[in-house]
Amino acid sequence: MATLGLVEYADASAEVRAVYDDIMATRQTDWINNFWKAIAHDPAMLKRTWEDIKQIMAPGALDPLVKEMIYLAVSVTNGCPYCIASHTFAARKAGMTEAMHGEVMAVVGMANETNRLANGYRVPIDDAFK
Amino acid sequence: MATLGLVEYADASAEVRAVYDDIMATRQTDWINNFWKAIAHDPAMLKRTWEDIKQIMAPGALDPLVKEMIYLAVSVTNGCPYCIASHTFAARKAGMTEAMHGEVMAVVGMANETNRLANGYRVPIDDAFK
Amino acid sequence: MATLGLVEYADASAEVRAVYDDIMATRQTDWINNFWKAIAHDPAMLKRTWEDIKQIMAPGALDPLVKEMIYLAVSVTNGCPYCIASHTFAARKAGMTEAMHGEVMAVVGMANETNRLANGYRVPIDDAFK
Amino acid sequence: MATLGLVEYADASAEVRAVYDDIMATRQTDWINNFWKAIAHDPAMLKRTWEDIKQIMAPGALDPLVKEMIYLAVSVTNGCPYCIASHTFAARKAGMTEAMHGEVMAVVGMANETNRLANGYRVPIDDAFK
Amino acid sequence: MATLGLVEYADASAEVRAVYDDIMATRQTDWINNFWKAIAHDPAMLKRTWEDIKQIMAPGALDPLVKEMIYLAVSVTNGCPYCIASHTFAARKAGMTEAMHGEVMAVVGMANETNRLANGYRVPIDDAFK
Amino acid sequence: MATLGLVEYADASAEVRAVYDDIMATRQTDWINNFWKAIAHDPAMLKRTWEDIKQIMAPGALDPLVKEMIYLAVSVTNGCPYCIASHTFAARKAGMTEAMHGEVMAVVGMANETNRLANGYRVPIDDAFK
Repeated sequence: MATLGLVEYADASAEVRAVYDDIMATRQTDWINNFWKAIAHDPAMLKRTWEDIKQIMAPGALDPLVKEMIYLAVSVTNGCPYCIASHTFAARKAGMTEAMHGEVMAVVGMANETNRLANGYRVPIDDAFK
Repeated sequence: MATLGLVEYADASAEVRAVYDDIMATRQTDWINNFWKAIAHDPAMLKRTWEDIKQIMAPGALDPLVKEMIYLAVSVTNGCPYCIASHTFAARKAGMTEAMHGEVMAVVGMANETNRLANGYRVPIDDAFK
Repeated sequence: MATLGLVEYADASAEVRAVYDDIMATRQTDWINNFWKAIAHDPAMLKRTWEDIKQIMAPGALDPLVKEMIYLAVSVTNGCPYCIASHTFAARKAGMTEAMHGEVMAVVGMANETNRLANGYRVPIDDAFK
Repeated sequence: MATLGLVEYADASAEVRAVYDDIMATRQTDWINNFWKAIAHDPAMLKRTWEDIKQIMAPGALDPLVKEMIYLAVSVTNGCPYCIASHTFAARKAGMTEAMHGEVMAVVGMANETNRLANGYRVPIDDAFK
Repeated sequence: MATLGLVEYADASAEVRAVYDDIMATRQTDWINNFWKAIAHDPAMLKRTWEDIKQIMAPGALDPLVKEMIYLAVSVTNGCPYCIASHTFAARKAGMTEAMHGEVMAVVGMANETNRLANGYRVPIDDAFK
Repeated sequence: MATLGLVEYADASAEVRAVYDDIMATRQTDWINNFWKAIAHDPAMLKRTWEDIKQIMAPGALDPLVKEMIYLAVSVTNGCPYCIASHTFAARKAGMTEAMHGEVMAVVGMANETNRLANGYRVPIDDAFK
């Protein structure tokens, strides 16, 4: 269970509710996932984290699906169970098909392998890459 | 320097040259970067690693640019200097603009932050994500 | 469950009991947490690990609360579920308030984010920091 | 060198200069370290990252020295060379003595060791820690 | 549960069954562990991953037991619960005694500790090691 | 350079020299590598770390070569440049041939890849492995 418990909407302060409302409006959903409820004990962290994510994950030079797949790739690399579950869900909602999912995972696996080969053999950086 | 030195084309066996030729043909370049030269002391590893990468990085459900950005995101998360340099180069070659680059980095930073918040507060996985 | 099972006090050798007794006396508790019981199958590891921790976590230039918060910060960064649970408990016992906890987590999240930005953009070390 | 080069004050836009000015004023220094210059190509990232750090690293329930030592502990765990150098510098400036530094490192080393023992032996979480 | 569910032998395509058959024949077992069933939704990944592992884990300059213990050491360092469980099992089957297991864990713990001390104190590489 | 500089034998206290002497005698060498000189500013850390390593790396159920290869595998996984250089050297001195080295690296790469696939697809642990 969450270390500090989860702050449900009904029990939340006006400050926390304002963030929850913005999350639901932005994501066009009618519920709040546990991540937000778990950090809501610290309203400043809740607000800061949400505003950062809202800004970073908005459509830009990259579309939201690509951003979600990158988020998933990082979460898989770090081995964060909650994040893998939630961002697999989010990426699918944004349009990730099963074939795309398989390709994300294949690239993640390959990169984790070659990252170690490059470090392990102490490969010098090519002049062209500097 | 590379632990075992770099196997240059001129000094390579026919088996290694065949892989080098395929790398250059596939990537439409006339040179081989140090990663391959460093692992070429082990021809079986060279061949296996190249064939895997060739298969995984080929256009599929995801285009090569997206795959390169995911590769870069993993390399940044793991902190592999060679891989960051080489995949920044490869992603740019595949079309990553400076704006896209900034968004990849922003997502990678954000994911690394929230991965720790989710683990650190021991957030339970929502039923909807299971 | 623990790979090798847990060595309970009643079943422990005199050598293991001596370590358990010292853990309880040092920590002023009347129970042994599972970590020690899990490594007690290897009495040399149990003794070495306990003596190291006893020495390192004792009051010194840093007080025990600061040390526990650093221990927690590392455990959160590495994503070790057992360690996060046990060191959250230990840090609270040593005096970590909910406000302090939130600040530890905020710093951990921020550091994990900027660690990747610094590596990802290949930022050169300033002369002043060398 | 930094992937995109460094944005010097003399070449910076008014938006970037405003952040640089606030960094120098807040830290009571007359120079900007490379991290900020490297991310300044993306003014939104510069502003967001600085505002987050300014908020998180300000005195609160924890004093700035403790926060800097936690930042250092995370950076050492992740193996980020730039971050280790810059936060060792910052922690010293905030008052970290050589003895404190040694204790930070000892705790970081110990935590990294026991994190693996706990995961490796699959230690179940004690009821008291749940 | 596995994100995409598990592909059981009875429901598998001929292509997947051929890999499953080869896994069981090579390992002299009559069952397939969940890892393979979970990636079998992507037959190309299943085939590629199995062929790589079959080649890499075969007896060579190192015997299979040593390879399994190295696999376990990496999995413990990365904190992958599935991999720790499955490679502890595999290493034992290959002959890892409880005493060997304890020594693997001790080395893994020690290496994780000194890796951080070396990075944290920014130790320059000795000429003899270059 | 090392954060605190290196403590050379000529400048060392009797306490530090005693450890240096034991390192050289145990390893049958006439020099001390930089790792020890860098942590010698903290004599308690020097002594504790050396005694742990001496105990852990001594011949036991596993021979020193196997232990060195496991140490290398962990260091490669963590991406510690100093540790990769020093333990590649140590493993070779203990008898690691180029073929063995290639196999260590292949297993490390493979394990890092499948660790992510297992986590990423959220593979449930088989009953047989529990």
